[in-house]
This record gives sequence, structure tokens and C-alpha cells, in this order.
Amino acid sequence: MDVKAINTRLEEKLKGLEQRLHMLLRSDVEFVELIHEDLMSAGGKRIRPRLALLSSELLGGVPHEVELALAVELLHSATLLHDDLVDDAEIRRGRQAAFRRYGNAVSVLSGDYLLSRMLYLLAETGRMSLVVLLAEAARRLAEGEVFQFQVYAYADHSRDNYERIIEGKTAALMRACTEGAALLGDAAVNERQALATFGHAYGMAFQMRDDYLDMMGDSKSLGKPLGGDVREGKITLITLELLAAHPEEVALIIRRGGKGPGDIERLRALALHDGVARAVVGEISGWVSRAQDALSVFPATAAKGALLDLAEQEMVRLR
Amino acid sequence: MDVKAINTRLEEKLKGLEQRLHMLLRSDVEFVELIHEDLMSAGGKRIRPRLALLSSELLGGVPHEVELALAVELLHSATLLHDDLVDDAEIRRGRQAAFRRYGNAVSVLSGDYLLSRMLYLLAETGRMSLVVLLAEAARRLAEGEVFQFQVYAYADHSRDNYERIIEGKTAALMRACTEGAALLGDAAVNERQALATFGHAYGMAFQMRDDYLDMMGDSKSLGKPLGGDVREGKITLITLELLAAHPEEVALIIRRGGKGPGDIERLRALALHDGVARAVVGEISGWVSRAQDALSVFPATAAKGALLDLAEQEMVRLR
Repeated sequence: MDVKAINTRLEEKLKGLEQRLHMLLRSDVEFVELIHEDLMSAGGKRIRPRLALLSSELLGGVPHEVELALAVELLHSATLLHDDLVDDAEIRRGRQAAFRRYGNAVSVLSGDYLLSRMLYLLAETGRMSLVVLLAEAARRLAEGEVFQFQVYAYADHSRDNYERIIEGKTAALMRACTEGAALLGDAAVNERQALATFGHAYGMAFQMRDDYLDMMGDSKSLGKPLGGDVREGKITLITLELLAAHPEEVALIIRRGGKGPGDIERLRALALHDGVARAVVGEISGWVSRAQDALSVFPATAAKGALLDLAEQEMVRLR
Repeated sequence: MDVKAINTRLEEKLKGLEQRLHMLLRSDVEFVELIHEDLMSAGGKRIRPRLALLSSELLGGVPHEVELALAVELLHSATLLHDDLVDDAEIRRGRQAAFRRYGNAVSVLSGDYLLSRMLYLLAETGRMSLVVLLAEAARRLAEGEVFQFQVYAYADHSRDNYERIIEGKTAALMRACTEGAALLGDAAVNERQALATFGHAYGMAFQMRDDYLDMMGDSKSLGKPLGGDVREGKITLITLELLAAHPEEVALIIRRGGKGPGDIERLRALALHDGVARAVVGEISGWVSRAQDALSVFPATAAKGALLDLAEQEMVRLR
């Protein structure tokens, strides 16, 4: 089988996953169903299930890969529902954030419903060590989110804190996707470590890229106006670097939420002119390489190729 | 050992539980610690751990009773943090609701942190069937909360819906406390069923009493003004019964949120005069009896006496 065949199979598995998710989230309570339908129709790229399923392929297919893929997606979706309150995001996955449509209350509690279904799925695997792995990922996710809030409350922005936030918010769960497959497949210690490193480094690259494109991408492929983070008062790697290079001007723009005429364009121009953009892309590239290098313990197979490709995709639109 | 000795031991165990809870909730993130300290100092009656520990005593002591007791309390505390957004409660456990002090965001995410620690505790028991039991309780809890929201959105108030709400919000988790002990102790099927019934019926009585006292209790022992539910627009068993007896007058009072002069006093007077209060007390008493009767499969021991007493306590201040 080649990489293309693996990816075709992956898409088929993902379709099956949607079906299973649909069954799993059925509820007698109409309002729970509304959130459920909203989540299903919003879709999303299902990145975390992809990571889990490709890691499983890499190991020749592990038992309960479907339960793992669904569990990580449910944890992610629950966090989105809980995190909408925090972020006040105007657009999430291309649709109005669920809480705007049904209220904070239903959002939070429906998130809890998803978590209860995740718990059920974990139990279905019969692997208590997977429960521990997900408990740890969930802990780091929650701590990462709260830590982000704390950093903003204290205006305690730094590179270290930025990395700590995205590690908790994104990398910890992505690591659980890949390491979870290793656990279910009873992989050797070095293989499990390799997959854990891949998931973590991929997660760091993924979030850094997401943050980078928010300012430096193009609004068409982004599906929303550029500079959303600046307007929402979010500080990401690129703004930290810009602040370091031009403390006064950039701080001013950030204070007024990028709302002055040409503010976002000015930040973009500065980033491109001063090599800030290039430095951030270099950093993302470093994480992508770390992810890819981690897989060197595995023989060259189509599944490995697909994972290497997945990581490589993070570099698309950046160079 | 007599009932008194059992209860003394219970209080000692509960003290140990506070210590363990304190260790378990430690976090490097200051804002998580703030919520944690808030939860610890607020205390609460730890009813759910009591149910778990006394059920364990009834079975002669079951393995991992402490983990069960902590897990149910964490699930309950997380729900309180998530549910504060819904209820807009001014006072919760005698202190300002956490979210008023630190914001909705930190509350919701700290609730998720508690859930992640619950997951970890469940794993510590090594019993996957306990994970399933708690997953089911968590599902019913979340569905119950969302269903409550739905009933209010549609103004779809009825006795059936009231019972369905409190079963989900309260009885399902209390049942998990008692049935969880049976599971951990590998109790016989009839004993497990008896404990499940006890927890469920006790939970129904507990919530009905709570709702009853909100209007019919005395504000001093309640620690807050009477009629809080009416003022918050909550419909409970007593208001449903009053509505049935005096549709126009009571509907009027409810519509204006009990804010007219003497409104709450009027509702109390009506309830006492018409036998509505007595009917509701009779209903609570029925659930207490069902709980107590369920324990008939167990021989008369001090632990059984303590559980019977616990249920009996629900009738104090009602007669």
C-alpha cells in the first residue's frame, strides 16, 4: 500500500467515525441533540482522530483505534464548547459559536455530556492505562486554558508562557492521540516515545501555524478577516516577536486592538520587513522537523509516509 | 460497633478525605489553585462521600472506598462550577459563587480540571466497571441539567418533568455513590440493587426537601432568604402543586418573581392552608421510606442504622 492508499483508507475510516459519533451522541433531550447536530454539521478537520488512526496504521493497526479516535475528538469538542465562553470567538469552525445560538448554559452542560460519552468510550477499550493517559491530557488541557486566562489577567506575556499555553491547550491532547495508539498497540517503549514526541511536536507546530496564519495568512483561505487575534487582544508568537522588535509602535497597535486604519497591514509589513515572519516560520519548521525526526525509529512504510506528509502540511502556505 | 461509633469513624474518614482532596487538586497554575482553595474552604456537607463511605461500611468495607468518595465529590463540584453559569446563584455553599469572583471562564475550566482528576481517581481503582458507572451518572447529570434548561425555555413545567430533572441532577449521582460501593465490594446482585435503590430514592428525597425548604423552611437555618427559587424563576414541586390549586393567583406571583410585597408569605400561607405543604412532605416521606425499605435485604448492623438515620434526617424540620 502506498501513501495515497493509506490516506484513502483514512478518509473512509473518518466517514465511519462520523456515523459512530452520531450514534454515540444521541440523546432523549432535544437541547442536547441540537448541540450534537451543530457539532456534526460543523464538521471540522478531525485532526485528532487522524493522528490517532494514522498512528494506529503505523503500528499495523491497534485494537480500539476507533474508540481512541472518538474519545480524543470528544475531549476536543467539549473543550471548544467550554472555551467559547472564554474566547468570545465570533466564528468557530465556520459557524456561529454554539453558545451564541443556545446560550452559555447549554454549551457548557453539553460539553459535559460529551465528556461523559468520552468516559464511556474509554471504558469500552478495557484499557485502564488509556484512562490514565486521557486523564493526564485532560488535566493539562484544563490547566493550559486556565493558565492562559491567568497570563492575560496579569498581562504576563512571554515566550515561555506562550509555549506553556499552547503545549497545554493543543500539544498535550495531540500527544495523547499518537501515544494512545502506541499504548493500545502495546508498542515497544522507544516506539511509544517516538509517537509521543511526534504528537507533541506536531501539536506545537499546528498551534504556532494557526496563530501565525491568523495574521500572516490570507483571509480567503482563512475564512475570516486577518488579525483576529490582535483584535481579540490575544498575544501569540508573532506579536511577541513584533513587540520585541518595535516595542512602542506595536504595543500601541495592540492596546487599541488593531482597530486603527491599516493597523493589521502595518503589523504584517513590519513582520515581513524585519524577518520576524521568517523567524516564526523557522520556529514552526523546527517543530515539524522534530516531529518528523521522531519517526526515524520506524521503518519506511506507507503509514509513516502519511504521518510525515501530515506534518509537512503544516509548512504549506508558510514558505 | 454502634451507630454513633460508625458516625464518628465516618467523620474521621471525611477529614482524611479533605487532606487527600487537597493533595489531589494541587496545581502549578495559580488560578486553578484559587478555585481549589475556594472549594476546600467552602467545605459543604460532603453528602455524596458520606453515602459512598457508609455504603462501604454496610458491606464491611470495600476496596478503594476513598477513591469512590472523592470521585463522586469531584463530579459534583465540577457540576456546581459549570452550573453556576446556569443558575446565577447568588450564594452557593454560603460563599459567593466562584464564578463571580474569578469569572465564568476560570470556573468552567477549573470544573474541567476537577473532572480530569476524577478520571485519574477512577483509574486508580483499577475497576473499569466503575468508570462505566460514573460515565452513566455523568451522562444523566449533564442531560438532566440541559433538560432543565429546555423545560424552562419552553415553559414546559409538569410534575413528570420536575421528577426527570431532579432524577438527573441529583438522584443519578447519589445512586452512583451507593451502587459504586456495591460494585467495588463485588456485592451480590440483590445487595447492589438495594444500594442502587437506596441512593436513588435518597437523592429524590434530598432534592425535594431542598426545594421544599427553600420556600417552607426558615431563613435562619437555610442561611438565605426564603423563596429564592421563586425569585429566580425556578419551578419546584411545591410551586407546581400551588399552581394546580390556585392557578391564577400563583401564576401571577411567579410571573412577577415573588417580588410583590408579601408574595412569599402568601405562597407559604396558601401551601399550609390547603394541604399542599403536607402533600409535598408526604411525597418526600414516601421517598425516604422507599430508601429505607430497600435496605431490608441487609442484616441489622450499625452501618445500616447509620444509613437509615441519614435518610431519616431528610424528614427533620419537615414535620
